[in-house]
Amino acid sequence: MQLLPGFRDFYPEDCARRNYILSVWRNVASRYGFVEYDGPVLEPIELYRKKSGGELVGQLFDFVDKGERHVALRPEMTPSLARMVAARERDYKKPLKWFCAPSFFRYEKQQRGRLREFLQLNCDILGDATPAADAELLALLIDILRGFGLGPEDFVVRLSDRDAWMQFASGRGVEEARLLDFLGVVDKLERAPEAESRRKLEEFGIPLEAVRAFIAHPEAEAGKLHGILADLKARGLDQFVTVDLTIVRGLAYYTGLVFEVFDRGGKERALAGGGRYDALLEVMSDGKVRMPALGFGMGDVVLANLVEEVPSAAQRRAEWLAARRSAEVYIVVAEESKRAEALQVLQLLREAGWRTDYAMGAAKVGKQFQAAEVLGAKFAVVVGAEWPEVKVKQLALRSEASCQWQDLPAFLKK
Amino acid sequence: MQLLPGFRDFYPEDCARRNYILSVWRNVASRYGFVEYDGPVLEPIELYRKKSGGELVGQLFDFVDKGERHVALRPEMTPSLARMVAARERDYKKPLKWFCAPSFFRYEKQQRGRLREFLQLNCDILGDATPAADAELLALLIDILRGFGLGPEDFVVRLSDRDAWMQFASGRGVEEARLLDFLGVVDKLERAPEAESRRKLEEFGIPLEAVRAFIAHPEAEAGKLHGILADLKARGLDQFVTVDLTIVRGLAYYTGLVFEVFDRGGKERALAGGGRYDALLEVMSDGKVRMPALGFGMGDVVLANLVEEVPSAAQRRAEWLAARRSAEVYIVVAEESKRAEALQVLQLLREAGWRTDYAMGAAKVGKQFQAAEVLGAKFAVVVGAEWPEVKVKQLALRSEASCQWQDLPAFLKK
Repeated sequence: MQLLPGFRDFYPEDCARRNYILSVWRNVASRYGFVEYDGPVLEPIELYRKKSGGELVGQLFDFVDKGERHVALRPEMTPSLARMVAARERDYKKPLKWFCAPSFFRYEKQQRGRLREFLQLNCDILGDATPAADAELLALLIDILRGFGLGPEDFVVRLSDRDAWMQFASGRGVEEARLLDFLGVVDKLERAPEAESRRKLEEFGIPLEAVRAFIAHPEAEAGKLHGILADLKARGLDQFVTVDLTIVRGLAYYTGLVFEVFDRGGKERALAGGGRYDALLEVMSDGKVRMPALGFGMGDVVLANLVEEVPSAAQRRAEWLAARRSAEVYIVVAEESKRAEALQVLQLLREAGWRTDYAMGAAKVGKQFQAAEVLGAKFAVVVGAEWPEVKVKQLALRSEASCQWQDLPAFLKK
Repeated sequence: MQLLPGFRDFYPEDCARRNYILSVWRNVASRYGFVEYDGPVLEPIELYRKKSGGELVGQLFDFVDKGERHVALRPEMTPSLARMVAARERDYKKPLKWFCAPSFFRYEKQQRGRLREFLQLNCDILGDATPAADAELLALLIDILRGFGLGPEDFVVRLSDRDAWMQFASGRGVEEARLLDFLGVVDKLERAPEAESRRKLEEFGIPLEAVRAFIAHPEAEAGKLHGILADLKARGLDQFVTVDLTIVRGLAYYTGLVFEVFDRGGKERALAGGGRYDALLEVMSDGKVRMPALGFGMGDVVLANLVEEVPSAAQRRAEWLAARRSAEVYIVVAEESKRAEALQVLQLLREAGWRTDYAMGAAKVGKQFQAAEVLGAKFAVVVGAEWPEVKVKQLALRSEASCQWQDLPAFLKK
């Protein structure tokens, strides 16, 4: 009996690390006024075919269910989000600032940073077409990574603008129908052999040098990216971003700002990516809902690798995990005849909110103290012959005191 | 574009209610020293066939993936848990106290309290065969429901013992191979017509009256249930349980204690159910791992219905939700020329941990105050001509004060 390839078991220590990531995601998103939503794990496959491009259809876990519906495990959130917002957009004040952090499923080749089931934080702003919204989303992205203890020496957000590329291409006579193909060549520029890029660009009548010159002196910086950068500067976050027109993003539906986040070391895949998709809601709702939108996705796999590698981030995670050890208080039953009394103490402390554990069966006192240490308990409460008085030991300090059992909740607080 | 039947969209207000349930589940389980784990959403179908009985195979969302593997969306957690524990049981001190609260998938008929994707809390104790472990698990179950503001007048845990039934049946000559069939008749006793139950029991040579007498005067109470009840009494939780031998549970793998939780009104399906499954790990590991175990599952759907219906529970939920309104502080930009300063204040407050929002575009001051009210903000911070001084309004009290902008985090704390 084995796990499927690309899927994960989360043993308690793995689950705690996963919950740490979810906790930082949720905390920072909430501070930014984003509210959480979620959708179903399973959707009709048409939802993913409908989205212009349908790039992910080849990677779907799809099947026909017992009711003859062709369905798919969600590979990304944007189609579900667009479906949900299109259905009830009148119920919400604009702009919507929504996030979610569920599991997604893609049938991918096994490689570092890629799994078939992964978590992904999705943050979106809907109903605001201004650079102020672009900046708010980027600030959130940056502060989430800062929330993990990562600094400007650890990651960079590379900003680009599809509109600038569209203008560049149409200004040089590329037909509208071929714009996406042109962007595809730009997307591969950093990875493809130079001769290949040159040949492909010639098909559009554009010399490689012109493209390189545009990337080197981006007219875009004077355009909408300028407003975004000024906003981020006011927040003190400008050192985390750089303009880099080699970024165009793979998905067809992006319309304006696009961006990707990379570790400065360049060892990992992109940590996150996103952009504007001002036309998608209209496509998804068959023209019923028009709403500008932008968002990003941040997976848990590459992020966890980076948190592991950067000492300040690993340290912050270790502190979070230590504060959540499984027990704070351990009840030591020193006299088996006092077990009923020990259960009373157990209940009292748990009701007062203390994470409290105990030995369910009779055990030597030394063994019980050992168990307390293994669980990382801060206090041991010894119930024995002195009842209704109990002993309280602070395990790290090896100090000891006594109190009446009913006073324990107040006593432990100090 | 529609949601699949039996699946749910969680709009922000739905998601907050879902998160409330998850939060109570996690908090109380942690207080009991339970640690969270999780497994994959997708498993090989053999995992569910292997479990003795395989009752849920007919309700699976199963399919063949792109790698020719026959897989299924998880319909329950116990097989994954057994697989995980069998693989690494030596790495953990016994007993294991583990919980999880993920999504499960069953192709069920549409009816009240049943969905095709639902959340279920699973709590299990592995490696302890004593009634003390039974009591610890039941106490957790009870305190979780109490954590929702439900009391002894709202729900009851009905305890039963499969061993007692096994002894009853073998003492009356039922062969071992037919014991599960016999339990099946007992399971339906409350719902099936009397004549049908009588006829079926006669096939086992047992009069209906004998079964009724056993239920009315359970010998079991003198047995292991006695120890469990005494333990719960010491914790002050005995008023939440009752012995009721009509409970036998549908699944084949239970071996001792079995229980179900019902609302006292009897309007809903079972809120939770579980029991001992001391032989399952051995079956799942092909005899490699023997470990006594018990656990319960509690779905979110019936629970949410009951929380809605019981005023004290609905009130507690409302308070939790109110404390998590999307913004605590709203920045009002009174002078558009001070937008950069307002962004500085925004960043300062968010870094200090305040959930803070603002209008991304220029808007009249009155409109901005309206937005603050809609978001449920406690404070409005007005950035305008007085800069570097800002005004702080407590929205509910309509009171106003001023301070230097850098002092805001400390000022708002008071």
